[in-house]
Amino acid sequence: MSGSTFGKNISMTTWGESHGAALGVVLDGFPAGLELSESDIQSFLDRRKPGSSKVTTPRKENDSVKILSGIFEGKTTGTPISLMVENTSQISADYSEIAGYYRPGHADYGFDKKYGFRDYRGGGRSSGRETIGRVAAGAICHKLLSQLGIDVYAYTRSIGDVAIDDSKFDRAQILSSITAMPDAEADKKATDLIVNCREKGDSVGGVIECKITGMPAGIGEPVFDKLDALLSKAVMSIGSVKAVEIGDGVLVSSAFGSDNNDAFCMNGDKVSKKTNHSGGILGGMSDGTDILLRAHIKPTPSISSTQQTINKKNEEIEINIKGRHDPVIVPRAVVVVECMCAFTILDLLMSNMHSRISYLTDFYSH
Amino acid sequence: MSGSTFGKNISMTTWGESHGAALGVVLDGFPAGLELSESDIQSFLDRRKPGSSKVTTPRKENDSVKILSGIFEGKTTGTPISLMVENTSQISADYSEIAGYYRPGHADYGFDKKYGFRDYRGGGRSSGRETIGRVAAGAICHKLLSQLGIDVYAYTRSIGDVAIDDSKFDRAQILSSITAMPDAEADKKATDLIVNCREKGDSVGGVIECKITGMPAGIGEPVFDKLDALLSKAVMSIGSVKAVEIGDGVLVSSAFGSDNNDAFCMNGDKVSKKTNHSGGILGGMSDGTDILLRAHIKPTPSISSTQQTINKKNEEIEINIKGRHDPVIVPRAVVVVECMCAFTILDLLMSNMHSRISYLTDFYSH
Amino acid sequence: MSGSTFGKNISMTTWGESHGAALGVVLDGFPAGLELSESDIQSFLDRRKPGSSKVTTPRKENDSVKILSGIFEGKTTGTPISLMVENTSQISADYSEIAGYYRPGHADYGFDKKYGFRDYRGGGRSSGRETIGRVAAGAICHKLLSQLGIDVYAYTRSIGDVAIDDSKFDRAQILSSITAMPDAEADKKATDLIVNCREKGDSVGGVIECKITGMPAGIGEPVFDKLDALLSKAVMSIGSVKAVEIGDGVLVSSAFGSDNNDAFCMNGDKVSKKTNHSGGILGGMSDGTDILLRAHIKPTPSISSTQQTINKKNEEIEINIKGRHDPVIVPRAVVVVECMCAFTILDLLMSNMHSRISYLTDFYSH
Amino acid sequence: MSGSTFGKNISMTTWGESHGAALGVVLDGFPAGLELSESDIQSFLDRRKPGSSKVTTPRKENDSVKILSGIFEGKTTGTPISLMVENTSQISADYSEIAGYYRPGHADYGFDKKYGFRDYRGGGRSSGRETIGRVAAGAICHKLLSQLGIDVYAYTRSIGDVAIDDSKFDRAQILSSITAMPDAEADKKATDLIVNCREKGDSVGGVIECKITGMPAGIGEPVFDKLDALLSKAVMSIGSVKAVEIGDGVLVSSAFGSDNNDAFCMNGDKVSKKTNHSGGILGGMSDGTDILLRAHIKPTPSISSTQQTINKKNEEIEINIKGRHDPVIVPRAVVVVECMCAFTILDLLMSNMHSRISYLTDFYSH
Repeated sequence: MSGSTFGKNISMTTWGESHGAALGVVLDGFPAGLELSESDIQSFLDRRKPGSSKVTTPRKENDSVKILSGIFEGKTTGTPISLMVENTSQISADYSEIAGYYRPGHADYGFDKKYGFRDYRGGGRSSGRETIGRVAAGAICHKLLSQLGIDVYAYTRSIGDVAIDDSKFDRAQILSSITAMPDAEADKKATDLIVNCREKGDSVGGVIECKITGMPAGIGEPVFDKLDALLSKAVMSIGSVKAVEIGDGVLVSSAFGSDNNDAFCMNGDKVSKKTNHSGGILGGMSDGTDILLRAHIKPTPSISSTQQTINKKNEEIEINIKGRHDPVIVPRAVVVVECMCAFTILDLLMSNMHSRISYLTDFYSH
Repeated sequence: MSGSTFGKNISMTTWGESHGAALGVVLDGFPAGLELSESDIQSFLDRRKPGSSKVTTPRKENDSVKILSGIFEGKTTGTPISLMVENTSQISADYSEIAGYYRPGHADYGFDKKYGFRDYRGGGRSSGRETIGRVAAGAICHKLLSQLGIDVYAYTRSIGDVAIDDSKFDRAQILSSITAMPDAEADKKATDLIVNCREKGDSVGGVIECKITGMPAGIGEPVFDKLDALLSKAVMSIGSVKAVEIGDGVLVSSAFGSDNNDAFCMNGDKVSKKTNHSGGILGGMSDGTDILLRAHIKPTPSISSTQQTINKKNEEIEINIKGRHDPVIVPRAVVVVECMCAFTILDLLMSNMHSRISYLTDFYSH
Repeated sequence: MSGSTFGKNISMTTWGESHGAALGVVLDGFPAGLELSESDIQSFLDRRKPGSSKVTTPRKENDSVKILSGIFEGKTTGTPISLMVENTSQISADYSEIAGYYRPGHADYGFDKKYGFRDYRGGGRSSGRETIGRVAAGAICHKLLSQLGIDVYAYTRSIGDVAIDDSKFDRAQILSSITAMPDAEADKKATDLIVNCREKGDSVGGVIECKITGMPAGIGEPVFDKLDALLSKAVMSIGSVKAVEIGDGVLVSSAFGSDNNDAFCMNGDKVSKKTNHSGGILGGMSDGTDILLRAHIKPTPSISSTQQTINKKNEEIEINIKGRHDPVIVPRAVVVVECMCAFTILDLLMSNMHSRISYLTDFYSH
Repeated sequence: MSGSTFGKNISMTTWGESHGAALGVVLDGFPAGLELSESDIQSFLDRRKPGSSKVTTPRKENDSVKILSGIFEGKTTGTPISLMVENTSQISADYSEIAGYYRPGHADYGFDKKYGFRDYRGGGRSSGRETIGRVAAGAICHKLLSQLGIDVYAYTRSIGDVAIDDSKFDRAQILSSITAMPDAEADKKATDLIVNCREKGDSVGGVIECKITGMPAGIGEPVFDKLDALLSKAVMSIGSVKAVEIGDGVLVSSAFGSDNNDAFCMNGDKVSKKTNHSGGILGGMSDGTDILLRAHIKPTPSISSTQQTINKKNEEIEINIKGRHDPVIVPRAVVVVECMCAFTILDLLMSNMHSRISYLTDFYSH
């Protein structure tokens, strides 16, 4: 209710700061009976860890998840699943200088105006580490969705001006490439771009795309809780996302109806569509075709080149942000987008079990 | 809770179908003491009415709002404000044919899959008329925001390939132009484009932009209820919106950090920024500068040219949708975007009254 | 979210004041496909109407419900059901005097402190007429529960010192007796007591009991949303209720465990219990036996004998409240308790459709 | 949203089972700036710990709280406060037998019916240990309320047939007596009763009373979120509570209005009442006088004498529950009632900061 909880039928409540004792999440309302171990979650968390690669921060974040509740004899029990990752390698000393001024592109100024002061160590609550909880909860939802035949996967569509070539789409590359691009060639180009950025003390943005296949039709609520509205909230709530598109997205504003409408057709005995400009969502509900969503991520605001800003005394100053920062947020945010989408889809799938009287009468007659 | 209610500190619950007896909204949690009359609301509703103009539907929608509760001696009482608009001119006969098939670009198919059947008259619950309740509630929030020095206004940025020229921005044009464009020249060109669309039996999309000035810094919650996340949900929940951008929006994905970061600076004794790529939001909180949001609206899916689709028996058919439809949704949706943003801003402003212990101790010491 | 909305999977939002234009409710999230007409609702509303009988107020409240949305071809559509009752016979002139002082036992003082002023006509929002919306929404839930084999019925257990004799329990009497007592003899005695109260310008309290049969086991959430916790909130939120008991209620505090524990046993092939001290609820979940709840209702605070109080200038004064008031709230509140319980039960029944992974996999495999 | 989260402006989400790795709570929405250390919370937790006394279980529960997030430089930051208590002394072996049957008076049967299986170790999620999170969160609210001049304190009113004598009320005794009774003599008698119960292998119930002084008038929302409705939910959601009374409680049902109404009067320049039958709440809002609430607690269901029940194969069996159990729940539940009330009061106090337009205009003009 208070801004750290997300979802309706299921809910996740995240907590923790970059340099606190730990970070975590409570996943509540999750159904009983899913086989679940820490490794199911760890494999998702590992995707957001900075690696030893040349494009991500050399900081070591050894994020090991612990399941603290909600599992008995290897299965979810229906009670809250509490997950925690201890902060083991944060060194607060690195951040002492930034306490006194407001970094451009960061939440520092807003935090001070809202709360009167802030935990300035490593971004505090607005650190990217906050997403650990989201990924941990989303990983569990992802596992259940797989059992329902629904596949949610995100990848990097572009970094700066380097975009993937859809004709070379290779899903296996998502997990193995440096940039999470499903195109080895684009991955190489993008890596060069990132390295170049780092050398210049600069950073760069990119686009994350998420696809959801196997969706039943009719998922999403017709008015405020439209499927696209909730996906937008889910994804826009990830730090650094500045735009969300569904299907053709921004292109629809210059399109004509005769082109933009997708004709329904039959594919054997399955309802299908001849095109998918809608990105699988019509009137806020899934139309049974693949869902397609894109998130536009801004360049990392922490750059090492000199910047102008003000300090807490309202004096204009010049700063040089120290420390090692990713020159691009995108590759590590891919799994966050995927997990937020998985969570949202599962939450809305659960709502549809209530949509007809006959579902209730059938359920309670057995 | 169930998809027709929006908001936290204040909430609006909309109800009604295109061809039911009436449509309306219950605005709950609104503070006591605002002077309010039906005309305050009617002036907003009139902006979404189809006019006699050449670009909107010639259907007559004489939408007169009635206040049913929550006002005493001309002021809000703190109790729920119930607002109703009776449906007076809907003729169901026009819609009998579409009952049997699924219109491309519409929610028809999803409704049937979700609920087993649908109210097919005029789109039922997914009609644009559902926004009557949103506009009525938003008008009241807008009035209170004005008293807090916050100005929320939306306008048409583009229709098809015709965009406004920012150097010719004339706010007065928003309410007087046919397209809600703040640029008389662009308005004329866009009107020609729309008329041309209608003649071809086609439709066209466009972009609505919303600006919010006078914002205090620190509004929005740092994690899931980020200011931009809630604005995105608010705006994406309007039918036909397929993308939402904050500030530079989709451009950030190809930008560099050195360009994208906005330097904080002093403007006299006020904190300001040298640029506003962020669109007034950093880390999910307002940064004290103007908020800028864009919604991309798809072309009206109801077009009169022949289309392919399937019917309820899963047979592929060709259809010609009859009746008069707006060839563009944008001009009438401008006030809906404005109202959803106003509501969201007010809701989050109320949360900040709780953000510090000192606010509570001050409040309860008087 | 803001105090006029109740429920999670389904929600009801009530609105309206005693002397406004109308009162009503929006029931959202209700499943599609229930046959519903205004008469289904009207029969419940008629149970809370003051009649021509000697124990209720001679005020005429001709409360006719209108369905404004959510029904198509005689069935619920899954979209919000808006219900309205117009206020036709309220005469505000009766209430002009009470504007200046605070009636003992009423919400007047709290309203002024909270909102700065109040709609003093007929109690405004805190009038018993507010329950019209609750009854209208609850009637619909009641109908669906019947189809699930669940029977919810409330009745008067006692008025003042007159209680029913359980050995003479006659359910048919609930709807036909003056006091809603299921015991004709007690009804007669209680009626005499009430008439006596009226003659003395006094009022009297009573106990309403609600039974729920046909409950599956396991309904209710184990922690905060316990079945008994939500029923308590539902019933305590009805004006004038000052205590809620489940099963043995207040008696448990002086009982021993060896008596209070109910032994599980088999009744044929059905699980049963040898006693039902628990009132059908253990650990916040239904145990499969009948649910039993009691609400203690205070005497009507509006009495015609002279009372002491203060006015808005903080002067101590003596008052005589004019107008005709029910000397007892209980008989008219019976249907309100029944409807609040029905709503709560249905809401929680819906949650259980999500409690196991196998329910989701079964549902989405068909 | 899903049953483990409570509250609106602030929320607490509890997690953990009796024999899991740990238990805890996330307190979200709590304002920034309260000085807080683990000892503030530990002193409340210690009140629910079983001691070495002769009336509570000799099990050793060494519950040490850790603050994992939300505090910086000794103050709350406005971000979620995560609190954890590790389970250090639970021995699962004690509970192996009960896995196969349903204990009378416990949630076992409901859990199995709802989720298909249960964590049977020590009651799992429905263990009294779940209240650790409630107490931890409530302790923080309690500290803030003190700074607002609001005092919340609970104590044991009665155990079995031994009740305190109000004329001997000694608040200091609450924390020092064995039974949490504010009356040394009654404490002694009740202790004897409990010891007697234990010797017989039986258990006994009791009444917990909570008083809240220093309340402003007008707190609570007029309809569903009435102050008494939310307090009832808060308290009834504690395991083993079977009835909740406000003020005169169950006595009102046999009272007359002329007695039950509390006359408003002046006490110097302060508004007061001549009596307090209402328990400080009228029409769902505080009336400015002391709030009085009573919770009726059932006898501990775990008793060592022989009981009848069924096992998972639906066979009727006789059981003897082994292990050491408190013969009375009441003394340890006192602090839980106090904490749930403190949380609820603070949540509703925050709502009132929004109740008038002038509060918003004043707030945003500074």
